[in-house]
Amino acid sequence: MTTVPPIRLPSGVRDFLPRAAARRRDLAERVLDVFEAWGYARLITPMFECADVLERGLGADAKAAAIRFVEPGTGEIVALRPDITPQIARVVATRMADVPGPIRLCYEGAVTRLAGERGQREILQAGIELIDDADAGDAEVLAVATAVLERLGLETHLDLGHVAPAHYVLAAAPDPATREALVAAISRKDRAGVRVAARALPPAIAPLAGELVQLWGPAATTLARARALAWPADVRAAFDQIEHTLASLESLTGARDLTIDLGDLRGFDYYTGMRFAAFATGAPDAILRGGRYDELIGRYGRPARATGFAIDLEAVAEAQRAAGVALPAVALGVATPDPVLAKALRAAGVRTVVQNSVAPEWLRGAGLDAAISGDRIVFADAREAIDNGAIQAARAGDTASLIALLKA
Amino acid sequence: MTTVPPIRLPSGVRDFLPRAAARRRDLAERVLDVFEAWGYARLITPMFECADVLERGLGADAKAAAIRFVEPGTGEIVALRPDITPQIARVVATRMADVPGPIRLCYEGAVTRLAGERGQREILQAGIELIDDADAGDAEVLAVATAVLERLGLETHLDLGHVAPAHYVLAAAPDPATREALVAAISRKDRAGVRVAARALPPAIAPLAGELVQLWGPAATTLARARALAWPADVRAAFDQIEHTLASLESLTGARDLTIDLGDLRGFDYYTGMRFAAFATGAPDAILRGGRYDELIGRYGRPARATGFAIDLEAVAEAQRAAGVALPAVALGVATPDPVLAKALRAAGVRTVVQNSVAPEWLRGAGLDAAISGDRIVFADAREAIDNGAIQAARAGDTASLIALLKA
Repeated sequence: MTTVPPIRLPSGVRDFLPRAAARRRDLAERVLDVFEAWGYARLITPMFECADVLERGLGADAKAAAIRFVEPGTGEIVALRPDITPQIARVVATRMADVPGPIRLCYEGAVTRLAGERGQREILQAGIELIDDADAGDAEVLAVATAVLERLGLETHLDLGHVAPAHYVLAAAPDPATREALVAAISRKDRAGVRVAARALPPAIAPLAGELVQLWGPAATTLARARALAWPADVRAAFDQIEHTLASLESLTGARDLTIDLGDLRGFDYYTGMRFAAFATGAPDAILRGGRYDELIGRYGRPARATGFAIDLEAVAEAQRAAGVALPAVALGVATPDPVLAKALRAAGVRTVVQNSVAPEWLRGAGLDAAISGDRIVFADAREAIDNGAIQAARAGDTASLIALLKA
Repeated sequence: MTTVPPIRLPSGVRDFLPRAAARRRDLAERVLDVFEAWGYARLITPMFECADVLERGLGADAKAAAIRFVEPGTGEIVALRPDITPQIARVVATRMADVPGPIRLCYEGAVTRLAGERGQREILQAGIELIDDADAGDAEVLAVATAVLERLGLETHLDLGHVAPAHYVLAAAPDPATREALVAAISRKDRAGVRVAARALPPAIAPLAGELVQLWGPAATTLARARALAWPADVRAAFDQIEHTLASLESLTGARDLTIDLGDLRGFDYYTGMRFAAFATGAPDAILRGGRYDELIGRYGRPARATGFAIDLEAVAEAQRAAGVALPAVALGVATPDPVLAKALRAAGVRTVVQNSVAPEWLRGAGLDAAISGDRIVFADAREAIDNGAIQAARAGDTASLIALLKA
């Protein structure tokens, strides 16, 4: 006897029912609208690629998170994309090789990641890439991120960083074990752990490791504290860059309170300069991450500066739900057995089902507001059914009074 | 020495550059808007599922086209979805088990298929499912398909069929080889081949096999020809159903010229009644396929009637390109070094890049219409650069005259 396996989903993937799906579609549209308003053109890239090609453009975290399999048609090893940025880099370096920079591109789509104990996760992601940017590229990307954050209905804040100070400290580690211990302790903002691991560093650098963990807070004061320490010239230049970026950002978007965090090491091997993350009340982790990655596009054969960010639409949707942000307004919806009336209502922007059944429970299940039958209107909510002449007018093509009645 | 493998894509998948991506986004929006206007609510389902769960709901063709692999987190065999319909069926039978029918759902997303010699293909697909429908469900689904086809800017036609006559003929095959030979010949509309294969059929049925190949053409005359043949009662009932559906469709959408094709066997094992396909000038194969599949949802534990269709957005986009259908209108786009002006223009619906560079070649590459610098406007097209006072007014918040000038 064989047992039929149960109906189940692979761990870490899920379905979105109508309300959840509507929120995600609305979010994706909002975010893409901002990207386009800033001149970013959308690309669509495939769900999976040859693993070796994709991996050229992945940081260590993303490389470990990629799901690989043998493509049965060709026997080639392919990987589900854990990130869309390397795909954009590939397109820019190959099919768009002749397009002069700066190039502004954006994307939206699902990515798939193995994520530790939680199993793989399918994440809806959107983002921008500014390639071959001029002087103020970092500020522009931060400005677009700010414009996106303002459209989410959430309390958010942006945390700005730069890889230079951590690079300087970690490059001084005498061996990989020390480096790893430092990365782990700094990532956890574990001051005691950093002190222990830093003992292996040269005496001039060890105290800077301890400071890294504390170099976060309001932009102006944190930068002033950082500047007071004994950093080399290239790290001081990074602080100048941050100040320059903040000034450009203010001219692009008006004042915005940013915080600085010089000890954030996420995706550290990937970024080459400025980096940032955005957090929202109700989201356990960053909802948006970005920064500069000047070495990425070159790995696909076109050396070019690049900066950008990706927003995790799933994390945003969850945060919106937790914060009680209302669902996007849905057009009025009705049921009627009359196809002529249905056509007129649809033309007026009302979702209209042609159907006889008018039970209020069914209307609610179908997400409709009312059923119109003959001269009678039955509402999905508690309101009493009414007889109304506006239905006749709507049938004759004048839907306005009927719609006003349904909305009332 | 190791050779670096070249930058390449797996066979059958592709990137969409901005113009192509814009066409696909526009198409998806158009189609989803029609679905929603008819009261269909969107679901989002995952890119891959446990293979055995997905396969419960796949026809033989789709089952053969599914790409399977071992999910590394759990060791479970999963499959990239070659179709979204079984996923909707699963959700309706499980998480929506308590929602009373009729249920109207829609979807849009990528599916992946191994497709014979052409290798796997990633296809952008959208579709609807009408579950637990009443009497006129087939007509409603055809009406929604008609409404979608009208929004594509293509010359299209709908071909309606029913599985009953072919079922009757094929059930009479004395052995699988005869059946296969018949299916192959009927699918190719190969009259000589059908005659040869039909020799193994009972004498009363063999001539009907030959007729199947010719039973296509305008609805009324083709049905009349079909009715003149010696079909059993259940096939005659199917002809009644088609006529009933055509009458309902006319009341829902107005008259529409349909053709009938009773010899179309694609997805034959999947459909249980009415079936249809839409074709467009410039598309080699059907751009839309659908029909009734009353056995599908039951395979997931909720016996229910169901009918629906899926449209291949990639095939539509290619047909649009071949037919010279214009790309969706893109909002006016400009570049300016002035962030205040940029903000005002963005608020007025103009895509605006903040940038100093104003070379016309760059503007064209970036898909922008003009660059504004100081009091000067440089156009991306052949027009001469001009000095204009409208820029001052726009800077002060009155963007209308500048926009009119740019559009002129």
